[in-house]
Amino acid sequence: MIDRAVAGRVQPASTLLGPGDDAAVVRAADGRVVASTDMLVQGRHFRLDWSSPEQVGRKAVAQNGADIVSMGAWPTSFLVALGCPADTPVSVTDALTDGIWSEVAEFGAGVIGGDMVQSEQVVISITVLGDLGGHEPVLRSGARAGDQVAVAGRLGWSAAGLAALLAGSADFPELVGAHQVPTPPYRCGPAAARAGATAMTDISDGLVADLGHLSVASGVGVDLDANLLEPDAQLRSAATALGADAREWVFTGGEDHALAATFPAGAALPEGWRRIGVVRAGDGVHVDGRSWAGAGGWQSFS
Amino acid sequence: MIDRAVAGRVQPASTLLGPGDDAAVVRAADGRVVASTDMLVQGRHFRLDWSSPEQVGRKAVAQNGADIVSMGAWPTSFLVALGCPADTPVSVTDALTDGIWSEVAEFGAGVIGGDMVQSEQVVISITVLGDLGGHEPVLRSGARAGDQVAVAGRLGWSAAGLAALLAGSADFPELVGAHQVPTPPYRCGPAAARAGATAMTDISDGLVADLGHLSVASGVGVDLDANLLEPDAQLRSAATALGADAREWVFTGGEDHALAATFPAGAALPEGWRRIGVVRAGDGVHVDGRSWAGAGGWQSFS
Repeated sequence: MIDRAVAGRVQPASTLLGPGDDAAVVRAADGRVVASTDMLVQGRHFRLDWSSPEQVGRKAVAQNGADIVSMGAWPTSFLVALGCPADTPVSVTDALTDGIWSEVAEFGAGVIGGDMVQSEQVVISITVLGDLGGHEPVLRSGARAGDQVAVAGRLGWSAAGLAALLAGSADFPELVGAHQVPTPPYRCGPAAARAGATAMTDISDGLVADLGHLSVASGVGVDLDANLLEPDAQLRSAATALGADAREWVFTGGEDHALAATFPAGAALPEGWRRIGVVRAGDGVHVDGRSWAGAGGWQSFS
Repeated sequence: MIDRAVAGRVQPASTLLGPGDDAAVVRAADGRVVASTDMLVQGRHFRLDWSSPEQVGRKAVAQNGADIVSMGAWPTSFLVALGCPADTPVSVTDALTDGIWSEVAEFGAGVIGGDMVQSEQVVISITVLGDLGGHEPVLRSGARAGDQVAVAGRLGWSAAGLAALLAGSADFPELVGAHQVPTPPYRCGPAAARAGATAMTDISDGLVADLGHLSVASGVGVDLDANLLEPDAQLRSAATALGADAREWVFTGGEDHALAATFPAGAALPEGWRRIGVVRAGDGVHVDGRSWAGAGGWQSFS
């Protein structure tokens, strides 16, 4: 199984020793390495009747990669531990592996190691290593009163796609696709770091919830301008059809792995970023001056 | 839960940014980082009626750490993803976390990141990062004909302890303890690298099986001398009581995470290492000139 997963795969130059020994060796030219890990469990973070194994593999890598770019770094290496029931068809593990490698290729990175074990549910645990390229990491704690608040990437699409799946609707394939495989704006992370972003995070729990984490870490408040966060036509159309609130998707939907960051007042925002509010003294996340009245965040679907 | 797991823990100097942001940042002064990952599943790799949660945590870290020292490197950082059923008592996750941290402390390392999710079984996925300290990694592939074959650490104790547990025997607490928490000879790994070891691996599948992997990677054969691998008194006593074969435990028992290495002929072996055979041209692992006739390796217990 492990041989099937690594055979014929091309490692980047940063992989000094790939899979096959007791451990891998990767270059860390910067003298530092950025690292994060996420575990996805079948039935909780994904359903194999809603997503293909290839999509699950891509999503698992995407959410890990988003944690690295949101530090202003770039992923170089992934380690993948996979638990599967004994009766899992090889076609499923092959497709999962293909999905993992295809998203890893988006970064020009490599899968440098892993483990495969038997388990009752499919469990995918990924660790990603990243390179800061000589820059300081952009933390959640650096926002200062007066900074611009900006976002890059889609908001609410994954939540809308999940709502369509739950409703059994086949009318919104692009939204469903965004739930199956998020498309985080990877390059916007390092670009924000180069542009002087003072704080950054990826949006995994929802815009309000994740800006809440950033505001606590920075000891500031965040004022969002609802006019700058109007749901797009796709979301409005789906909300009408599904009897849902498109603004709720935008403000509380997670899993798109958009990026949120703060930039000094007056700084030009890099490509892909748009202004959505301002940092102020105080605490909490407000929308048009009021506390967000909807759901506070987003949880996995079971 | 995550706050409970990280509160009050002391990070080593190599942890530049610990848990709490989207990713951690660790020092990699060597310009390279060694990495490995292992997943342990309840009922397959451990049983909570046979091991305390604290022991399970220690074992999970030990088997990951052994993969790093067997490269001649030293663990600096661990990332821990934990899946648990919703009804898992906090006392269990606290004890698991305590076990993880206490074994991590054996290395002076830190737990720099993690994830906690809901799952049907307890699943622990650990990734370890290590530092080569300016030395080249010791691979499985460097053994040459004429090299000495040597081992550091216990052989067969974990297998004997498992046999005692399976038999319901309470007569061999030290062997059972070795199964519950292996004690790999961590410092013997970097010491072997400094002493010029030509190849090294940790013994997770059993002496014959893991030397088999080393022999294939190196394109050589291995001749073991059974006189140098006589079972010790504890193993002989347990084998008699349990109706088992102590030599089978020594040659095929896994999970002790002893280290096996090859050294140039005539090289003085560092402290903790003992000679058990010789590398020859050819292939395969032989004992006293014959193929090992017993079981070829070792599998998890379910």
